Amino acid sequence: MDFTIIARNAKKASLEIANLSEEIKNDVLLKIANAIENEKNEIFEANLKDLKEAKILADKGKISISAYNRLKLDENKLRDMVQGIKDVVSLDDPVNKILMKRELDTDLTLYKVSCPIGVLGIIFEARPDVISQISSLAIKSSNAVILKGGKEAVNTNKKIFSIINSVCNSVKDFPKNVIQQVFTREDVAEMLKCDTYINLIIPRGGKNLVKYIKANTNIPVLGHADGICHIFTDESADIDTAIKIVTDAKMQYPSACNSVETLLIHKNFPKKDKLLAALQLSEIKLVDNPESWSNEYGDNTLAFKIVNNIDEAIEHINTYGSGHTDCIVTKNIDNAEKFMNNVDSAGVYFNASTRFADGFRYGFGAEVGISTNKTHARGPVGLEGLTIYKYKLKGSGQIAGDYISGQKHFHHKDLI
Amino acid sequence: MDFTIIARNAKKASLEIANLSEEIKNDVLLKIANAIENEKNEIFEANLKDLKEAKILADKGKISISAYNRLKLDENKLRDMVQGIKDVVSLDDPVNKILMKRELDTDLTLYKVSCPIGVLGIIFEARPDVISQISSLAIKSSNAVILKGGKEAVNTNKKIFSIINSVCNSVKDFPKNVIQQVFTREDVAEMLKCDTYINLIIPRGGKNLVKYIKANTNIPVLGHADGICHIFTDESADIDTAIKIVTDAKMQYPSACNSVETLLIHKNFPKKDKLLAALQLSEIKLVDNPESWSNEYGDNTLAFKIVNNIDEAIEHINTYGSGHTDCIVTKNIDNAEKFMNNVDSAGVYFNASTRFADGFRYGFGAEVGISTNKTHARGPVGLEGLTIYKYKLKGSGQIAGDYISGQKHFHHKDLI
Repeated sequence: MDFTIIARNAKKASLEIANLSEEIKNDVLLKIANAIENEKNEIFEANLKDLKEAKILADKGKISISAYNRLKLDENKLRDMVQGIKDVVSLDDPVNKILMKRELDTDLTLYKVSCPIGVLGIIFEARPDVISQISSLAIKSSNAVILKGGKEAVNTNKKIFSIINSVCNSVKDFPKNVIQQVFTREDVAEMLKCDTYINLIIPRGGKNLVKYIKANTNIPVLGHADGICHIFTDESADIDTAIKIVTDAKMQYPSACNSVETLLIHKNFPKKDKLLAALQLSEIKLVDNPESWSNEYGDNTLAFKIVNNIDEAIEHINTYGSGHTDCIVTKNIDNAEKFMNNVDSAGVYFNASTRFADGFRYGFGAEVGISTNKTHARGPVGLEGLTIYKYKLKGSGQIAGDYISGQKHFHHKDLI
Repeated sequence: MDFTIIARNAKKASLEIANLSEEIKNDVLLKIANAIENEKNEIFEANLKDLKEAKILADKGKISISAYNRLKLDENKLRDMVQGIKDVVSLDDPVNKILMKRELDTDLTLYKVSCPIGVLGIIFEARPDVISQISSLAIKSSNAVILKGGKEAVNTNKKIFSIINSVCNSVKDFPKNVIQQVFTREDVAEMLKCDTYINLIIPRGGKNLVKYIKANTNIPVLGHADGICHIFTDESADIDTAIKIVTDAKMQYPSACNSVETLLIHKNFPKKDKLLAALQLSEIKLVDNPESWSNEYGDNTLAFKIVNNIDEAIEHINTYGSGHTDCIVTKNIDNAEKFMNNVDSAGVYFNASTRFADGFRYGFGAEVGISTNKTHARGPVGLEGLTIYKYKLKGSGQIAGDYISGQKHFHHKDLI
């Protein structure tokens, strides 16, 4: 189908779902969760087709083993998908919240009310579980979505998509075309140009995907390309805390974006040899002369550098980091405050592993992704990041001229 | 100077001003206000030079009379500039506000804290008063700015800029390069490409400028190109209210972006002839067959259309409007709610003139501009629109592995 028609239908759907009751939205979500559970065998079957094709590509080295693994759905992943949808049901409806109520003058009251963004373009790589996750977040926040999944998962994606859409179509009062799917590279190119209808692009995938998208669209993009996280071990750091935090931040899940890539150590930290030895014992591969200080290793490699003071550490992070998550290990509260105030990152941590940078761990219940943007939403983004607000002004015939002439005066009284 | 150096210096300045005390920021702002007041004769002298050149261009028809008028500074405008800076002093500091405080677990507390965006690129046309306005908003919100003014105002801009910068340079502890200025088209082209250092572009000028900028940058742009505002006169509208509101919204200041361009009238509104006659009496030029329903006239022209019902009105606005500000005049509360919920605009009004869409009238104290974006900030934008937030996590040695293994559990207790 012509992409413009898809986009126009999405826009129409977004206006229709904008004011749908939470009851209907939750009803649809629970029915989707049940349908996925009930039709899991058909999903596994479709997934098996994709896995066969992917195996051939993996054997030829055309896709990575980890991409193959991400593509694979099993009972555990399917249970998580179903539970994820149910979790979204239990979250507060993020739209129609009154964020401000201000009387500008008698019988002239301004309301700032949260509302959906509109149409989301989601571009994701070989993880078919993204469809149900993003679809449920979109439905809960009253946004329409256009999904483009990786071609390796095409059969699985189509199956999950058709389950979701037959539920959506079966529920009276649920608008058509809230969840749509496209398949080709040409569709992606059109999506990135389609700023008339699409309000936000969310890429879910590797940094090359995100970089490509950011470079090729004027539509706002929510996400992060790099996760170059740092830990600075200050002069006064507790050695056990330092070992524990650095080891967790590197080794607990090395390919995660919130894993640490660079360790900065204060030159006067008395236990630095002990720290480095302990890290090596945990099979961390230390590198003191990396090709670049902006590498995201994604494995057990950890760059390290001795710095003269906290200022040098802060400057290093602001120069080579990606604004994702950075941590200071110290007993000095003043240094902790200085670090957290001066490091320009979405997450600035004091004596805690960078691996806490995550929507679930922050208590958001569900996560759209992690943003290193400096506008709209930063850090782990929950449902709130899929909303904006509008101003409702309820008057009784007031005109601006009366206030400009000085005949009337605003009193600007906050009621909420 | 090489633009990259300017941008890099701005980035450095943004990190330095990020944590400057409100006291120093207000001190600088008051000194700037006084310096502008004290050196007003030099400013008028520089302005006169620009006006001489502009007069020649205006006589040749190369710039409009209104552009010439906007360029002209007089005692009144200068007084407003000075007062504007003083008003910003009295506003709350928008940074370092704790927006959320949540205990994730014992001694592991997450803070969401407001902070500046970083570096703002401001591109404005022939209004030299923008420099002091934007500079003071940037200083108060701890952002660095790079300003590019219209070439017609080059002498005035340089003079005001040099006054601001000698104050900034004279105050101990105020960082260098917070306010910088560039002059050429090439600088603008470089600015739009410079997403490494510039975090937000704010255009202040006509719609061609805004459209050009939006089409030529990947940096987020805050603003609006069009202001195609509507008033829908419902079946049950009070005739006097309708006449008063439409007249104010069209005639109080026809070239403003929040002026009405299209009047929609319910076919069963019994007083429609009286309404149209009254509008013509107020010298409004009515057009029932416009070339386009998306025209922004900027003068006394008002397109009008008879619609069958409120749904047609809403659909018309969502199709041809610009998402700026739209109003329903009615006595029917249900229709008012329906209109405000379903019209997808930054401002949705009930029985009040569209001309209220303004930061000062909303009580924001100062205005960055009016945004029709669906992300970050929408509608009139005050100081808050120049901020984002960071997450500070204060721990006592916690690692993610303990929570993933199930050894420890989050309790997610909101403290604010």
